[in-house]
This record gives sequence, C-alpha cells and structure tokens, in this order.
Amino acid sequence: MTDLLIEKIQKTQNPVCVGLDTSFEYLPEEMRKNCRTFSDAAKAIAEFNHAIIDAVKGLVPAVKVQAAYYEMYGAAGMEAFEATLTAAKEAGLIVIADAKRNDIGSTAACYSAAFLGETDINGLKFRAFPSDYLTVNGYLGIDGIEPFLADCKKHGKGIFVLVKTSNPSSGQLQNRRFENGEALFEAVGALVKGWGSGSVGKYGYSDVGAVVGATHPQEAAVLRKLMPRTLFLIPGYGAQGGKADDLAVYFDPQGNGGIVNNSRGILCAYKFEKYKGLDFAQAARAAVIDMREDIAGALARRKI
Amino acid sequence: MTDLLIEKIQKTQNPVCVGLDTSFEYLPEEMRKNCRTFSDAAKAIAEFNHAIIDAVKGLVPAVKVQAAYYEMYGAAGMEAFEATLTAAKEAGLIVIADAKRNDIGSTAACYSAAFLGETDINGLKFRAFPSDYLTVNGYLGIDGIEPFLADCKKHGKGIFVLVKTSNPSSGQLQNRRFENGEALFEAVGALVKGWGSGSVGKYGYSDVGAVVGATHPQEAAVLRKLMPRTLFLIPGYGAQGGKADDLAVYFDPQGNGGIVNNSRGILCAYKFEKYKGLDFAQAARAAVIDMREDIAGALARRKI
Repeated sequence: MTDLLIEKIQKTQNPVCVGLDTSFEYLPEEMRKNCRTFSDAAKAIAEFNHAIIDAVKGLVPAVKVQAAYYEMYGAAGMEAFEATLTAAKEAGLIVIADAKRNDIGSTAACYSAAFLGETDINGLKFRAFPSDYLTVNGYLGIDGIEPFLADCKKHGKGIFVLVKTSNPSSGQLQNRRFENGEALFEAVGALVKGWGSGSVGKYGYSDVGAVVGATHPQEAAVLRKLMPRTLFLIPGYGAQGGKADDLAVYFDPQGNGGIVNNSRGILCAYKFEKYKGLDFAQAARAAVIDMREDIAGALARRKI
Repeated sequence: MTDLLIEKIQKTQNPVCVGLDTSFEYLPEEMRKNCRTFSDAAKAIAEFNHAIIDAVKGLVPAVKVQAAYYEMYGAAGMEAFEATLTAAKEAGLIVIADAKRNDIGSTAACYSAAFLGETDINGLKFRAFPSDYLTVNGYLGIDGIEPFLADCKKHGKGIFVLVKTSNPSSGQLQNRRFENGEALFEAVGALVKGWGSGSVGKYGYSDVGAVVGATHPQEAAVLRKLMPRTLFLIPGYGAQGGKADDLAVYFDPQGNGGIVNNSRGILCAYKFEKYKGLDFAQAARAAVIDMREDIAGALARRKI
C-alpha cells in the first residue's frame, strides 16, 4: 500500500493529508441547525465530508478519518464513518482510519478484520470499515501487532504505529530513557522498523509506518535517521502548532518519507479571514493549496 | 463508581467479571446457521449476550464488553454493542467497555463523550455507548487522559488504564527498565496512582483503575505494593493461562482490590465436558460459580 501512497504523493506533488476529524461544531450553522438526533448529526457530518472529499480529490493523496468523531454519535456515527471511508476511496484517495487500536492478539485480529481485513460470516466475507491504513498503538508489543501485519500482507494494506505523538504531554512516557540511553519513543521506533522490514516496497518505504507529531522536530530528526525505511504520518501541523520549516527533518533528502495531516486548518478554513467569501469546500481546497506551497517552500529552502 | 463496584463485589461475594468478548464462533450452531449479513450476526450476538446477562445477573458484579468483537460487524455490530451495554446496565451490572481508547486531548474528549460522558447536539444531550468504566491506553501521557478524568468526576464513572497487559509479548516494552531502574509498567503504574489520587472512595480505591494481566503475578505483586489505592482489572484467567492461586497477590489482605475477567471460559462453557447437558446460559452460570469458588479458595489458602 505504501508504494501506492508514495505514487499518489508524487502524482499530486503534495504530501498533505486531509484530516476528517469532523467535529459537528465545524459544520456551517446552516447544516447544523435542524439536527436533533444522532442520525441527523451523523448525516450532516457525512454530507460535509462528501463535499470536502469532492473539493480535494486529485489535489491530495490521502485523507485521515478520525474514528472518535464518529463514535460519539453511536452506531449512526459509525455509519457516517463507513460512508466517509467509502466516499474517499471512491474518489481515488488513500484512506487512513485513525483509530489507534490496540489489544492482545485474538482481539487485535478482530480490529484488523474491522479495518484492514474481512469479517467472515458462515463463509461469506464482508468489510466493516474499509481502510487502506490503520493507526495502532504498540504498547502491547509484537503479538498485538501481528494480526495487523498479517492483514497488511494478505490484503495489501498498511499501518501507522504511534511512536512520538503530537500532544504536549507525549514526553511524559515517550521521552523517558531506558538504561541503555534509548528513549521509549526510540525503542518503539526500533520495533516499528523491524516490524516493517519484510514489506519495504520499490520506493524504499515499508507498509509499517510511524506516527511522528509535527510538534516534535528534534525527536523526528532522531527517528528519520533511525528508521530510513519508515513512512511518517505527521499530525499536529497548524492548529496544534507544527510549522512547515520544522517539517524538513521529517523527510528524506529527496523530499519523500512523510505525509502531513491537517484537520481543523482545512475543515474550518471557511471561518478564516483569509478565505472570506468562499464556501467551506472551496475554502478547504484553497487551504490545501496554501499548505502544499508552505511545505514545498520549506523543503526547497532546506535544499539551499 | 468504584465504591459501587466494590459494593457489588461484596454483595455477590464474587470478584468475577464476565467478559462479553462474544466471538460469533462462540455461538451455538443453531444461532449462527442462518446468519448471512452483518445485521444477522450482530443480532445473534446481542441475543446470545442477553441470555448470558440474564443467567449471571445477581451472581457477578460486572461485565466487560470488548468493542473489537462488535466493530468487526460494522455499524450493525456497534448497535449490538450498545444493546449489550444497555442490557447489562438494566440487569443491575456494572458495565466496563473494553475499548483501550487513546488519543490527543481534543480527540480523547470525543472518545470520553462516546463512552463515559454525553454528546451534545444543539443543546440536547445523548449517550452513545453508555458505560460505567472504559479501558484506556496511557502512552500519550496525561493530556490524553484528562478528558476521561473530567467525565469520571462529572458523571460518576471510572477508567482502567493499561499497565501490565496479559499477552505474552507485553514485556517487550512494558518490562524494559528506565535509567532509574523503574520498569515502564511501574512508571505507568505510578502515573495511574497519581491520576487517581483525587478520586479515592470510602473503600480506599480510586476511580482510576489499572489493567494488570492474570498471567503476570510477579509484576502484579510489585504493582499491588506501588498502588494500594488502585483497583485492578485482571484479564487472562483461564484460556490465557492465568490461575487462581497466582491471583492472591493481586488482592489486598482483605481480599479486595481486584476484579477478574473471564471470557471464553464462561461464554464457551457449554462446549466443555464438565458442563455437558446444560445450555449455553446455564453452563455460563455454572462456570461463573466454579470460578468464584476457585478464586475464593485461592484467597482463603493465602490467609493460612
């Protein structure tokens, strides 16, 4: 799957991922005002997402859909989640389900079936929340990861394992150092590197990626050296404080190896003075173009 | 919530939690054979769970419902998940949603709303997957935990944070030692202790519990000393290899402080020679009684 993602990044000349962490509050008042039930809200969110997907397709390689923002609307929300994943796929986008799932092996196999693989019912095969990638948490070690690796191999999918997260308190555990001087995030990075060693594709990157927050360039520089075959999913640009010039260290010298997510800065662009007069979908498209230029500029400056 | 859970454990004289990790394969052939869709399978699973809940209510304090086994049937599965949570609550059981959720603060707030709090739609409040406790993963540190703590306080709920998991590879990261000699699982335990310090109830246990696998009694003994105010949710008894005599160290000298989950050993009891002639619900009830006696015996032997 990572070969395909890299080809889409190259084709669009754009390492931007649109984060469909679609909070109900992000929707224009007009779409929100008559909602009274989970079903109403979920349908409005799915409709908003469809318009965003239509506006950015062809312009970005991928979307990241954050499960939490759908789960809070119950089963109706999960229908909207599935509809969003499907719409993005149909629009030719790579679909990253951001659900940070984790459990013991037998249970991880169920999560993997839900997102990456198939569910078997009396010999009939179904896909619950069809995704190209799933984010996962590696705290349980390899036997909580193996079921995902098996489905990646069988179904041509990928995962992104949390290594260094974008939030302010990520260092509380992740930056603590083991007896040998290695930080926890480095130890997880080393495991992730190993887990991906069997799936390195023709562009030099494996199907087992890492989540590395845009807000931590120092750690990212360490990780980029440690794991040269690992694609980074980079959240935290924009609203969380990550800046384009900080992102240069996340990429390899050719400008590959990273995909930068932005959610609020794209979904809520229509509320910004800069995009005044545009509807939410047009503003999202304009914000994606601006973000692409912002990152391209930072990568170009790095080369000087 | 932990005061209520302890009262239910005392009332039932039973620290057993029934794990509704209801794999479709666990259902009797008769309930499975006509299923052709997600909706069919999800309804059959919910029906099976209802019968189990009816059979064990009054006998156990709590059930733990594993989200992965429902998510794999899509939105229909999540309806069955919600129906199971609701049925257990109506049967007077404490409901633990085992979903191991984790994310940055703003997203953790959505997960918390989904399980412990409320979702607001234009001023109307709804509950998506109403649970008394939620399992969470602490890899992101305090700001991924705070939204759950806020809902615990506001809505009288609790969480169990993964500390030492029951799976074979849990030591790959969790048992590595930091520079000061502290293992990662101890470091997480120390954080969990702190996160719960503001919610210690009348029985001496806080609303912030820890997941400590039944398969790791050595680590459990360390943790029981480190965190005397933390209730342990103990998975891994039975099918995963945890034995009652190993469990003594998980409890305090009065026999409090732990709740022991069993899933397969209860849900599939009807397949065992020992319970031959009983239907699945009767067999589950008999297995719960046997497990209660098994643990009581182990705790009594400890006192000698």
